[in-house]
Amino acid sequence: MTLSLKKQFHNTRNAFVEKCKPLQVEDYSVQPVDFVSPPKWHLAHTTWFFEQFVLVPHMPEYSCFDKDFAFLFNSYYEAVGERVMRANRGLMTRPSVAKVFEYRAHVDEHMLRFLDSDVVLEVQSIIALGLKHEQQHLELFQYDIKYILGHQPTFPHLYQDENLKDVSTSVEFLKIEQGLYDIGYNANGFCFDNELGYHKVWLEEFQIANQLVSNKSYLKFIEAGGYNKSEYWHAEGWDFINEFNIKCPMYWHQIDGVWFQYTLKGLQKLNLNKPVIHISFYEAWAYCEWSGQRLPTEFEWEVASFDFNWGEAWEWTNSAYLPYPNYKKEEGAIGEYNGKFMVNQMVLRGASVATFEEHSRPSYRNFFHPQLRWMYSGIRPIKKHE
Amino acid sequence: MTLSLKKQFHNTRNAFVEKCKPLQVEDYSVQPVDFVSPPKWHLAHTTWFFEQFVLVPHMPEYSCFDKDFAFLFNSYYEAVGERVMRANRGLMTRPSVAKVFEYRAHVDEHMLRFLDSDVVLEVQSIIALGLKHEQQHLELFQYDIKYILGHQPTFPHLYQDENLKDVSTSVEFLKIEQGLYDIGYNANGFCFDNELGYHKVWLEEFQIANQLVSNKSYLKFIEAGGYNKSEYWHAEGWDFINEFNIKCPMYWHQIDGVWFQYTLKGLQKLNLNKPVIHISFYEAWAYCEWSGQRLPTEFEWEVASFDFNWGEAWEWTNSAYLPYPNYKKEEGAIGEYNGKFMVNQMVLRGASVATFEEHSRPSYRNFFHPQLRWMYSGIRPIKKHE
Amino acid sequence: MTLSLKKQFHNTRNAFVEKCKPLQVEDYSVQPVDFVSPPKWHLAHTTWFFEQFVLVPHMPEYSCFDKDFAFLFNSYYEAVGERVMRANRGLMTRPSVAKVFEYRAHVDEHMLRFLDSDVVLEVQSIIALGLKHEQQHLELFQYDIKYILGHQPTFPHLYQDENLKDVSTSVEFLKIEQGLYDIGYNANGFCFDNELGYHKVWLEEFQIANQLVSNKSYLKFIEAGGYNKSEYWHAEGWDFINEFNIKCPMYWHQIDGVWFQYTLKGLQKLNLNKPVIHISFYEAWAYCEWSGQRLPTEFEWEVASFDFNWGEAWEWTNSAYLPYPNYKKEEGAIGEYNGKFMVNQMVLRGASVATFEEHSRPSYRNFFHPQLRWMYSGIRPIKKHE
Amino acid sequence: MTLSLKKQFHNTRNAFVEKCKPLQVEDYSVQPVDFVSPPKWHLAHTTWFFEQFVLVPHMPEYSCFDKDFAFLFNSYYEAVGERVMRANRGLMTRPSVAKVFEYRAHVDEHMLRFLDSDVVLEVQSIIALGLKHEQQHLELFQYDIKYILGHQPTFPHLYQDENLKDVSTSVEFLKIEQGLYDIGYNANGFCFDNELGYHKVWLEEFQIANQLVSNKSYLKFIEAGGYNKSEYWHAEGWDFINEFNIKCPMYWHQIDGVWFQYTLKGLQKLNLNKPVIHISFYEAWAYCEWSGQRLPTEFEWEVASFDFNWGEAWEWTNSAYLPYPNYKKEEGAIGEYNGKFMVNQMVLRGASVATFEEHSRPSYRNFFHPQLRWMYSGIRPIKKHE
Repeated sequence: MTLSLKKQFHNTRNAFVEKCKPLQVEDYSVQPVDFVSPPKWHLAHTTWFFEQFVLVPHMPEYSCFDKDFAFLFNSYYEAVGERVMRANRGLMTRPSVAKVFEYRAHVDEHMLRFLDSDVVLEVQSIIALGLKHEQQHLELFQYDIKYILGHQPTFPHLYQDENLKDVSTSVEFLKIEQGLYDIGYNANGFCFDNELGYHKVWLEEFQIANQLVSNKSYLKFIEAGGYNKSEYWHAEGWDFINEFNIKCPMYWHQIDGVWFQYTLKGLQKLNLNKPVIHISFYEAWAYCEWSGQRLPTEFEWEVASFDFNWGEAWEWTNSAYLPYPNYKKEEGAIGEYNGKFMVNQMVLRGASVATFEEHSRPSYRNFFHPQLRWMYSGIRPIKKHE
Repeated sequence: MTLSLKKQFHNTRNAFVEKCKPLQVEDYSVQPVDFVSPPKWHLAHTTWFFEQFVLVPHMPEYSCFDKDFAFLFNSYYEAVGERVMRANRGLMTRPSVAKVFEYRAHVDEHMLRFLDSDVVLEVQSIIALGLKHEQQHLELFQYDIKYILGHQPTFPHLYQDENLKDVSTSVEFLKIEQGLYDIGYNANGFCFDNELGYHKVWLEEFQIANQLVSNKSYLKFIEAGGYNKSEYWHAEGWDFINEFNIKCPMYWHQIDGVWFQYTLKGLQKLNLNKPVIHISFYEAWAYCEWSGQRLPTEFEWEVASFDFNWGEAWEWTNSAYLPYPNYKKEEGAIGEYNGKFMVNQMVLRGASVATFEEHSRPSYRNFFHPQLRWMYSGIRPIKKHE
Repeated sequence: MTLSLKKQFHNTRNAFVEKCKPLQVEDYSVQPVDFVSPPKWHLAHTTWFFEQFVLVPHMPEYSCFDKDFAFLFNSYYEAVGERVMRANRGLMTRPSVAKVFEYRAHVDEHMLRFLDSDVVLEVQSIIALGLKHEQQHLELFQYDIKYILGHQPTFPHLYQDENLKDVSTSVEFLKIEQGLYDIGYNANGFCFDNELGYHKVWLEEFQIANQLVSNKSYLKFIEAGGYNKSEYWHAEGWDFINEFNIKCPMYWHQIDGVWFQYTLKGLQKLNLNKPVIHISFYEAWAYCEWSGQRLPTEFEWEVASFDFNWGEAWEWTNSAYLPYPNYKKEEGAIGEYNGKFMVNQMVLRGASVATFEEHSRPSYRNFFHPQLRWMYSGIRPIKKHE
Repeated sequence: MTLSLKKQFHNTRNAFVEKCKPLQVEDYSVQPVDFVSPPKWHLAHTTWFFEQFVLVPHMPEYSCFDKDFAFLFNSYYEAVGERVMRANRGLMTRPSVAKVFEYRAHVDEHMLRFLDSDVVLEVQSIIALGLKHEQQHLELFQYDIKYILGHQPTFPHLYQDENLKDVSTSVEFLKIEQGLYDIGYNANGFCFDNELGYHKVWLEEFQIANQLVSNKSYLKFIEAGGYNKSEYWHAEGWDFINEFNIKCPMYWHQIDGVWFQYTLKGLQKLNLNKPVIHISFYEAWAYCEWSGQRLPTEFEWEVASFDFNWGEAWEWTNSAYLPYPNYKKEEGAIGEYNGKFMVNQMVLRGASVATFEEHSRPSYRNFFHPQLRWMYSGIRPIKKHE
């Protein structure tokens, strides 16, 4: 297994560097809003994880690349010491991007050497976690890059395409019977602590759409005045869209009456057959209210997911992000990974076009604050009972 | 039943006026923070409910007391038209308090006359809802009065006592077996729409405390440095207590090394045998983390509540406020009552010393944002599995 | 002179109480914005001045009415100790208005007794300053009352009228020759420290209007798009009117195409022949830019003021509030009266309809931040040289 | 003169490029606070000035380098059209730094060709203004670079030194007689419009220091508790230093009891013999209050400046930035240069070590908001009369 871990390490770390190739040096250091991190920071922070939790404690001959980096690139682990305030990350012009790539190379070289040695199981787990952590950041990195470039007045073109598949023009609904179902991760591979606590949940019968809502359907909601009628919205959702003057999904632009959408390929005419993405929980919920449907709970989603295709966009559920019965957080800094975020966020299930291959499973619990929209998020409705 | 409704109307409306007696005119109009409403506003808004939803549509000969009042005292019903921004309520010096009491008398007189007539069932329901609405405001009114007076530099004395009972020095834990339980309201009396959708929930075995956490126990948490160790807190809870420099429950004051607590009777020495109250969800959760326990879910609470005493303080659960399966919101303005708040709030169960008699039942779902502390809120822990 | 000081004391203190008569208790305690103080606070603070600076140090048998009041009603004298934050004054419901009037009566009684004794000259000066201080607050009190009531949705009627005189339909310009002029107070009566430092200023020839700009003229500026053209505005003025969406003077309301103005008599049709009032420095300056004129400096105003009528509204000058040559601030708390405000404010000269009789002279220097508009402020232009 | 203008053009433009050499690409794009502009922006904006005001209107064969740049790099000229909000400049990752240098080269090449032709006087004036504009930005550029690097956790070293001269250990005071003096620019060279309006000012006798206040003297003020005593401060200054927890000049750091100062050479031990710099107007004023002195007016400074050395640091005066008598702003966009900033700012006189050679004269009026400290600003006191 050490061999295979080494291979995984190599693949994940390379994938990140590969994704950076179309960027310019200037793109790496900005932070346009709080929830976006500068790309440079992702590159360094994921590297710091391996240095801090693997090399420093477990490879005696390792010496830190730069002792300041622990301070500069710790994201949120309070237990590990002082850290740069999230909102100030975009002001760090030093170290340079080149230096950060050197840092990656330095840590990678030592990690690969370390992986050649006899790694105890406990450290293998930390490395596996570090890779999953890096894969998560690789996905966030894509959201952030899209946000940074999509908010340039010049709408630059970066990659070839975002590769979302067309949805069918006719949606079907899958019926799931009522009953007591098993929820959570119950196999031998990797999973996060928040998926553990395999447990039973009773579900009433429900019927769930076999595909995501399309841009075409969502546009009908807009054209029906959906953003102007308080009756479809949570009170806080209504305040949110009014405060920020939100009238459509993020990256949509109506220019001389024609709808466009910013993609990583540049500004494109809106393709009505693609799933609607870049919407907040509030918008997903309001769309369902308008269309007489509702969002699934995360348990309904997990149970039904064996019967439909998913993986294009994270699917908002109407479940708050909370611990499963018997949830246990890990000891020490690693224990800060998930549990301390279990308030004020909603669960999304599935995966997206930006998700690293193999970084998805039906029990995977993603979560975001209900107003966020810069990730690839979509809607899969459930029929309401009459 | 019309007769009994009239009696209920009389009792509830009078209880409010009775509670006002110790106030001074100046106490009625201020709004020290967003979540507190001026007492005058509660008096008028609850009256407006009956005028707007009963007298205007159903009593043809009724003429409005003052046409401006609909604008001034609508709280949040978007469907009913423009309203004064919540944050500006504390600036309304006119109408005077005396005028608001006239308004109450005017509406009461017409309501009592109306209740002598033959009231159709649908309108009876609205009146019953209006009374429950008023009872809720009567409770909020007490929180707000306490906040307003408890933040005067002079700590005025208002009522005789808040009447919380002592907790026992030895807590016991009640064991509930795993199984499929029924949740929600399933009888013929009044309940809110958020309790409907009677449904099954599977619970694992758990052991729940037979009483609330005492000031004495909570003080140990403080003295153990609980407010200074990030490991016990949600990330957002940690930010919250640091931003507002929170070091103890609301209304606690340490003066020359001695702990005091503001009560409606004035500033008192902290009584260690009373339940700890005026804490946020974040504090309740952190206390449990520190003591190796956890908060119940609202379902665990509801199932277990038949076996312990409750009613002193609202009990924080670790359940987010979300709709039950098959939740249906009412048509029109009344439908804005509950559903649109089902995001970003946590459920509290039970009742408090400020709750109107008969305004409580095991299925009752109260809810507040996790940082709020000005209500009577407490902690009932569950043992963690080893 | 002690006798006459007693008479002055009596007159000023009574004038304040007289002005309170049309208020309701509720009007006294609110603070809608930072720059408005609750009326109750004015009543107590002016009283505290005499208690703190006269009775406590100079009348041995005097005992304080309430020892908390020093903390509650100190406005800004850092040297005198802790004080309630300005922005929290509107939350003090206790002491009651009735108690504050008792406080006034208590202090007045002792002051009058004190004034019957042999008062040394130095203390006479402090009392005289206290009366001027009270007269200033009496004027601010009127601005604040107008703001509080003018921002009620119901526009209440309070006094009979604000008594501004009509301006003539044809303005004349008075020519003042260039030369070296004397500026500042140079007689034996009372003046503030900021008027001392009698000194010479060289002025170029100028021509100044013999009356204030009328509502009619100002309306032309509005109708010419004055609020939409950046070229007339200071950069910070332009930002200010855009941030707060300002399109006309404070208290003007355009209802169905007709202009109204809130006055202390209630909402009135705009009278075109009255001087324009309730404008910021930015608006005064922009009006002048638009009309090809300019504002006077405070020195030009002082020199020319002997030749025109003034006293309707404070007249914005283009002078910043700065010390005169050889300005000396007093020792101790009294020294905080003026000097520490000499930055970021503009000078206004003259007096207004709210100014206490005898509280005005040509050398009087009033000052406000350039964005403020709730005082009676107007415009007297100077011709620009071609 | 066209020849000499070409030479000036060449020198100024090259000086900017020269100053950029030690920067890394990452340093160019950040904007840590509102008042700092990203270095890239300075480079492009100064170039845009020549393109917009010279090449586009006066060189028929010229075609714009990129039509988006007018939008991206207009700073504040409302008359010239839409512009990127000041606070968003730090988010522009595109165009790249390399592209901006291409833009400079493109415009320089055309400007030099244009300067070879017969340039009419009016356009010569605009070019001269453009060069002075560029020299101002070159100075701001140095402040901004220092701010960006001085706020990196790693305190990078950039240039050799900032070259401030030692002050003498014994200060002398120069006496200036009272009298009527001439103020403003009255020669044939270049000056800004704010220096015109040559006019007389009467001054009382005064005595002004022959050198700037040293770090040593300023440290005494700190050690005497100057930052903790409200009596030395303007009310707004006191609020400012408390809100931002300011205890010393910008770039001073006390580490283990020893004072250091960040300079462009890196973190250095504080040199007590250098003039104190990087202080706000509030600090300059408070220092004078503490030491029983005062700041000069800008007129006193201008009259006395012929008798002392200056040019190390801009010297705060106690004069607000206001128009001289008969000040006339230019027509069109150029007219936005100075006049619209004449409110809420204080005048500084002299020049600093970052000022371009030849960009200084005794009549030069620099101006900043009173709280700003990131420029090279110092203190030259005047004795107070006894």
